[in-house]
Amino acid sequence: MSRYWSDIVRRLTPYVPGEQPALAHPVKLNTNENPYPPSPAVVSVIRAELGEHGEALRRYPDPTARALREAVAAHHGLNADQVFAGNGSDEVLAIVFQALLKHDQPILFPDITYSFYPTYARLYDVAYRTIPLDAAFQIRIDDYRQVNGGIIFPNPNAPTGHALPLSDIERLVASNPDSVVVIDEAYVDFGAESAINLIRQYSNLLVVHTTSKSRSLAGMRVGFAFGDAALIDALNRVKDSFNSYPLDRLAQAAAKAAYEDDAWFRDCTAKVVASRERLTARLIALGFEVVPSSANFVFARHQAFDAATLAARLREKEIFVRHFKLPRIDQHLRISVGTDAECDALLDSLKVLMDGHLA
Amino acid sequence: MSRYWSDIVRRLTPYVPGEQPALAHPVKLNTNENPYPPSPAVVSVIRAELGEHGEALRRYPDPTARALREAVAAHHGLNADQVFAGNGSDEVLAIVFQALLKHDQPILFPDITYSFYPTYARLYDVAYRTIPLDAAFQIRIDDYRQVNGGIIFPNPNAPTGHALPLSDIERLVASNPDSVVVIDEAYVDFGAESAINLIRQYSNLLVVHTTSKSRSLAGMRVGFAFGDAALIDALNRVKDSFNSYPLDRLAQAAAKAAYEDDAWFRDCTAKVVASRERLTARLIALGFEVVPSSANFVFARHQAFDAATLAARLREKEIFVRHFKLPRIDQHLRISVGTDAECDALLDSLKVLMDGHLA
Repeated sequence: MSRYWSDIVRRLTPYVPGEQPALAHPVKLNTNENPYPPSPAVVSVIRAELGEHGEALRRYPDPTARALREAVAAHHGLNADQVFAGNGSDEVLAIVFQALLKHDQPILFPDITYSFYPTYARLYDVAYRTIPLDAAFQIRIDDYRQVNGGIIFPNPNAPTGHALPLSDIERLVASNPDSVVVIDEAYVDFGAESAINLIRQYSNLLVVHTTSKSRSLAGMRVGFAFGDAALIDALNRVKDSFNSYPLDRLAQAAAKAAYEDDAWFRDCTAKVVASRERLTARLIALGFEVVPSSANFVFARHQAFDAATLAARLREKEIFVRHFKLPRIDQHLRISVGTDAECDALLDSLKVLMDGHLA
Repeated sequence: MSRYWSDIVRRLTPYVPGEQPALAHPVKLNTNENPYPPSPAVVSVIRAELGEHGEALRRYPDPTARALREAVAAHHGLNADQVFAGNGSDEVLAIVFQALLKHDQPILFPDITYSFYPTYARLYDVAYRTIPLDAAFQIRIDDYRQVNGGIIFPNPNAPTGHALPLSDIERLVASNPDSVVVIDEAYVDFGAESAINLIRQYSNLLVVHTTSKSRSLAGMRVGFAFGDAALIDALNRVKDSFNSYPLDRLAQAAAKAAYEDDAWFRDCTAKVVASRERLTARLIALGFEVVPSSANFVFARHQAFDAATLAARLREKEIFVRHFKLPRIDQHLRISVGTDAECDALLDSLKVLMDGHLA
């Protein structure tokens, strides 16, 4: 604390991301990274942009990321003015909170959801009300039918992995014309239905995507928002009042190439989905309850073992999973889907720990 | 405009960066980029981080950019907790406005200065008062001796290029203990004295640097703030409430390598300084008045020729300089220092235009 701090700084509760261990070969199942590398085309375009002497790096990137936005728009059958690009979907979401979710009425989001949302709300002084998930950890759309300044949740939800059908999303968007509904689709490519095609029909729908999960580019920081051009305009006005050039040259080139290699994308996501189903079955065989997941992680609890203890013991073996010390979910573990070999390392260690009663 | 916009969006005046022309070989002297590529070590470390298959890109970067901050701290004889890293110094400055410059009293900055400052102030609802430069376009330190919520200006100032001596900066910082003084040293490496060594002595001093100018990394987006650990803590709290991972893996590696190759840095900046002196002399020979510059640009006017017209005619020849349509400086051009060959292309075109009375 210091007298030089602005008032807002005292009131913040910064988000704490999952640990990035500095180990040679951790089994890292704690931050929902993709176990497969990005498309080989990504490596090629970065090398090309770099050139022999890095000549291009001395020049500012395109502040509008036009080539990237056009490629992503084409991929989704949209126009470039319906696409906003930011420095990771976390930055995109922050700008969404500031540009579209700050109104007189509180915004609504689930009590169990991406824990960055309340942090953004405090940063921008956005009032919010949380809506409890039901006992099965599912979002009940009808609970959101109340006056609000906006609605936001992930689909599939995090950290539960549960997905709503598109018909539920459309029902909500159609019944909520007075404020923006933000669907954070960070995990949509692993088995849920995207609402992206609804943006042409509903001017109050904003869909957020990331390249960090299904495109294997967490290390490059590129995310998007899709919506009516007026919503995208608001995001650009804030972005251009904050940082003209949020995406560097190599990130723009990498993300564009990732969207252009659809075969790689389909192959990697299919492999992750297959590993998720295998992991789920084996966790259940070990006595875990697992929330049915449409994401690249599973959310699981064991009646006989404390989740925090399990996570701590796994960590001693350099196996990292995520535990949230939060109401309702402090007995759950969120486990990212790795390769089958990584999942097996986890399952083997769990079995040893539990057979020895964590000895 | 849309009813979905937050109120703040309606009030914004987004910053407009210099044009990034999509031409094969423009003479680009409009955004103060370095005419020389970054250190060869930058290219090597990006290639190494990329590897054969881009395996590292699937993983999140270090959210704290620790290795980079430690390298930059070591370079300046500081501790890592005195260094904040952001996605370009524009992002760093935005976070500074939100975290350290929002108080009851208005902040102070020059009437002629980096035009992003009033934009940040509007984005975060920070009251400000501008202090006129004197008739020679110089900052008069004594004019800032008044109650304030903070003080910010670049040294050298932009777009004038004029630098204050370190003794003036220290006098101001010492006489202003109740609020933060931010010295934006984007251009300091081209001939001004850095205030960075004063941060150990003055807990109210924050110094901002960028890799976009003297380190030839405008394309990679890396900037820093240096100050007392309590000031840096405030910036981190805002950053961690906004975006945990602002710097991608390749940007972190690139910036670290750039700081570790001091010989390349000294050589490039020396060449730019030599070219600036040469350009200045030749502009004066053509009848221009040139503000003495300590930056990698010059600020020049010609009594006989309208600045906007000159800029437009040069643009037709694919030569880009910056013209600001702003009070007091609308008859000036800001010309980035390129290679001697680029400066000669500019000088030759100016001569032809003026000899033909712009015909």
